[in-house]
Amino acid sequence: MRRIMMVIAYDGTNYCGWQIQPNGVTIEAMINKALSELLDEPIRVIGVSRTDSGVHALGNVAVFDTRAKIQAEKVAFALNTKLPRDIRIQDSHEVALDFHPRFTKSYKIYEYKIWNHTFSEPTKRLYSLFHSIPLDVELMDRAAQYLIGEHDFKSFCSAKTDVTDTVRKIYNIDITKEDKMITIQIRGNGFLYNMIRIIAGTLMEVGAKAYEPEYIKEILAAKDRNMAGPTAKPEGLTLVKIGYDK
Amino acid sequence: MRRIMMVIAYDGTNYCGWQIQPNGVTIEAMINKALSELLDEPIRVIGVSRTDSGVHALGNVAVFDTRAKIQAEKVAFALNTKLPRDIRIQDSHEVALDFHPRFTKSYKIYEYKIWNHTFSEPTKRLYSLFHSIPLDVELMDRAAQYLIGEHDFKSFCSAKTDVTDTVRKIYNIDITKEDKMITIQIRGNGFLYNMIRIIAGTLMEVGAKAYEPEYIKEILAAKDRNMAGPTAKPEGLTLVKIGYDK
Repeated sequence: MRRIMMVIAYDGTNYCGWQIQPNGVTIEAMINKALSELLDEPIRVIGVSRTDSGVHALGNVAVFDTRAKIQAEKVAFALNTKLPRDIRIQDSHEVALDFHPRFTKSYKIYEYKIWNHTFSEPTKRLYSLFHSIPLDVELMDRAAQYLIGEHDFKSFCSAKTDVTDTVRKIYNIDITKEDKMITIQIRGNGFLYNMIRIIAGTLMEVGAKAYEPEYIKEILAAKDRNMAGPTAKPEGLTLVKIGYDK
Repeated sequence: MRRIMMVIAYDGTNYCGWQIQPNGVTIEAMINKALSELLDEPIRVIGVSRTDSGVHALGNVAVFDTRAKIQAEKVAFALNTKLPRDIRIQDSHEVALDFHPRFTKSYKIYEYKIWNHTFSEPTKRLYSLFHSIPLDVELMDRAAQYLIGEHDFKSFCSAKTDVTDTVRKIYNIDITKEDKMITIQIRGNGFLYNMIRIIAGTLMEVGAKAYEPEYIKEILAAKDRNMAGPTAKPEGLTLVKIGYDK
């Protein structure tokens, strides 16, 4: 038996998220089906990030165990021929049988993109949020500084979760603007349910001058989801990378 | 009677190109329909670039004449509410009644994008060509230099055209690579049918070392479409801008 790790990219537009569901097509289900066909044995992957419906990924990670003889590096090539064009394996290689990708220390990089202009731009519409009200990136950047470090992010967690430990660590947040695209890049050791989208929605309120940057401190202290801004829509969110420190 | 000019962006994926056709949905038809509804009179726009099926635009240009009282600048806002999400007017303003956008001296900027990596990337697949064979950008750039200036581009023109004057002027070609995306940006005073896509296909042959950069000189001199490389697929092509020098 061997354990093989895969790096997976997908356009989430037409999927009900990563995780298998009774109704609706998910990325996990598509990969299980393609892998089971390829290796001719029932395969169930263990994925790391259970991205929501409509969220994209450049580098989600999943592992699976197999007795098949296929060379680990060839899995990516072979599996891609069995997947639709909006899911593509980027890499595959063997890992230790006891490597668990979700419980091993890692960092994750997410990006939330906002097309901030009077009119939306059709070729950007699937991979960013269109927002016509001008946002002040400098204010957003000042607000973001209060989120960096280890905090109880309960206020930035959807109520629909059973997680009890809501302490997480954000290593850094970079906010950049190129042409009309604002990118909020967040690197952390793990994120709560909807956390990035609530952070993006809250920073947008700051950028629109509805909140002062300093209000972030109050939101964190309150540990109350109602204090933070709205959950920004999924199309703006992309899981960029999951990294394992050697 | 007033003449109103519009700047139009679209995702060409689901359209049979710009120009009205008996079969198939085109961007021109969608805009005529939406404008006629909005202004309550039959409107037929005059477009500048008749982009092919599957080609995208950030800034195509069209004009129309109307007796309606609507403020020219408001046309963009009003029309966008009547258009599908993959077509968006970016600007509208009044121009002189005798301004003809196709016969007035202009420059056009096109970009051809190539995702040059072992595996395709789902969120890039609609707006770039996936090409897994490594391309040498430095060689492509050397080849491109031979195309700059005024030349007879007959070898770079699809045989399916009635145009007899095949002399055009290319002001510059910039080839850049960022991450795995190669962008060929071309600025010229006008382009023949499929010219950019044949240039892209030919430069890719140079990048793959099938042609020497100097072979471009022979292709130009031959005035024979069969000498140049293949017509690169439409999804990689975007009309970025049409500019009118004041």
